[in-house]
Amino acid sequence: MSKPLILVTNDDGITAPGIRKLISIVNQIGDVIVVAPNSPQSGKGHAITINSTLSFEELNLDGPQKDFSCSGTPVDCVKMALDKILPRRPDLVVSGINHGSNSSINVIYSGTMSAAVEAGVEGLQAIGFSLSDLKWDADFDQAEEFIKEIILKTLENPMPKGVVLNVNIPKLPKEDIKGIKVCKQANAKWEESFDERTNPHGRKYYWLTGYFNNMDQSEDADETALANGYISIVPVKFDLTAYEYMNELNSIYQ
Amino acid sequence: MSKPLILVTNDDGITAPGIRKLISIVNQIGDVIVVAPNSPQSGKGHAITINSTLSFEELNLDGPQKDFSCSGTPVDCVKMALDKILPRRPDLVVSGINHGSNSSINVIYSGTMSAAVEAGVEGLQAIGFSLSDLKWDADFDQAEEFIKEIILKTLENPMPKGVVLNVNIPKLPKEDIKGIKVCKQANAKWEESFDERTNPHGRKYYWLTGYFNNMDQSEDADETALANGYISIVPVKFDLTAYEYMNELNSIYQ
Repeated sequence: MSKPLILVTNDDGITAPGIRKLISIVNQIGDVIVVAPNSPQSGKGHAITINSTLSFEELNLDGPQKDFSCSGTPVDCVKMALDKILPRRPDLVVSGINHGSNSSINVIYSGTMSAAVEAGVEGLQAIGFSLSDLKWDADFDQAEEFIKEIILKTLENPMPKGVVLNVNIPKLPKEDIKGIKVCKQANAKWEESFDERTNPHGRKYYWLTGYFNNMDQSEDADETALANGYISIVPVKFDLTAYEYMNELNSIYQ
Repeated sequence: MSKPLILVTNDDGITAPGIRKLISIVNQIGDVIVVAPNSPQSGKGHAITINSTLSFEELNLDGPQKDFSCSGTPVDCVKMALDKILPRRPDLVVSGINHGSNSSINVIYSGTMSAAVEAGVEGLQAIGFSLSDLKWDADFDQAEEFIKEIILKTLENPMPKGVVLNVNIPKLPKEDIKGIKVCKQANAKWEESFDERTNPHGRKYYWLTGYFNNMDQSEDADETALANGYISIVPVKFDLTAYEYMNELNSIYQ
């Protein structure tokens, strides 16, 4: 049986330690092609580049994989990989390992998860991996076995079209990780607080800052699982229709 | 009874004819504050600005509303409006009128809809409006009465938390619009085809292009409603959990 073709991308950029770790893991499983941003693209959500141009180039980095550095967003990388770079449709698209959590509401801001969602829109199997540690030199080793398990299980048990996985890993030593839990997206949000400063010319400017407000203590929420030492897996879809509200809305417009 | 406070934003920029039309409509209903991007932000999805700074300034444009031009993405505009500009939480956030359709899968790429979703995350009532006409000088007049009706109905019938509306208007004369239909997001996608060019220095570069592939002929899909001459309303949520796949996923990880 031929090896699966695996596309790897991320939002922290092609040289980030998190993606290099993920590449080393998938190199053990399949033929690997990396198409990732040439610069940090955190918080880019599902942005695509339509008012300017894109380019990519092949790099010569260590390992059996092929590496392509792309000028666009994570979603651009997936589109460009599929249309211009890959020899055939990949069997799996993995994104990450993100430096920082993409649990709960972060799924909608995350370039890492948006790349996985874009692959899902293309009808592909896709998983986004994130570690709850923003540091550039975070320890990605502790999650290796779990990531491998999740990838192998996904290849063996393909998801239905329209579903991708959002996997978050707590910042814990390997021996303290309690296992893997299937979860729902926790009800949480960022409470904004812009940091106001004045530039040398007297004009005000702002940095986006804030704190994370978890409003969901339910047992099956991803934030709860992470707080309890589990790796969380949320099945994510991109049909955003609020079906449960359609009847009421229909009654308003009848 | 005091007038509702209405925040207006968009992704085509604060001077786009679509947002100026929407402002003229909501000026008839409430007190209006506009916080919109100072440059086109189409296709920016749910992007936020975290690696650079933001600024805004008040403009002096015709009309009773206040206009603030912001350097960020549509989602940045909503965050900045709530934290730094509005005197109190608004009763409604409206985004658009977008120059171009945001039906079906376009909801995830659209800056217009992401601004409405961000308002929903903040627990606010929010509606995104889009016209199926990309032209800068598109005719936004034909939809005025329908937009007014939808805004008034939303103020009278608040949506549950976690739901916002995605309203799309077909490019038709007013007399040919058949009415308003509550719909689901159609199953559709863009088929990418990058346009490859060579720059004066011999390097290849690409423009993202493609064609729209509607794979959903069901009666209640937004694409069907638009094709049949109706204005489509899709209730949109941002809990992306694929609940219907959780049992199966649980059985894989037991």
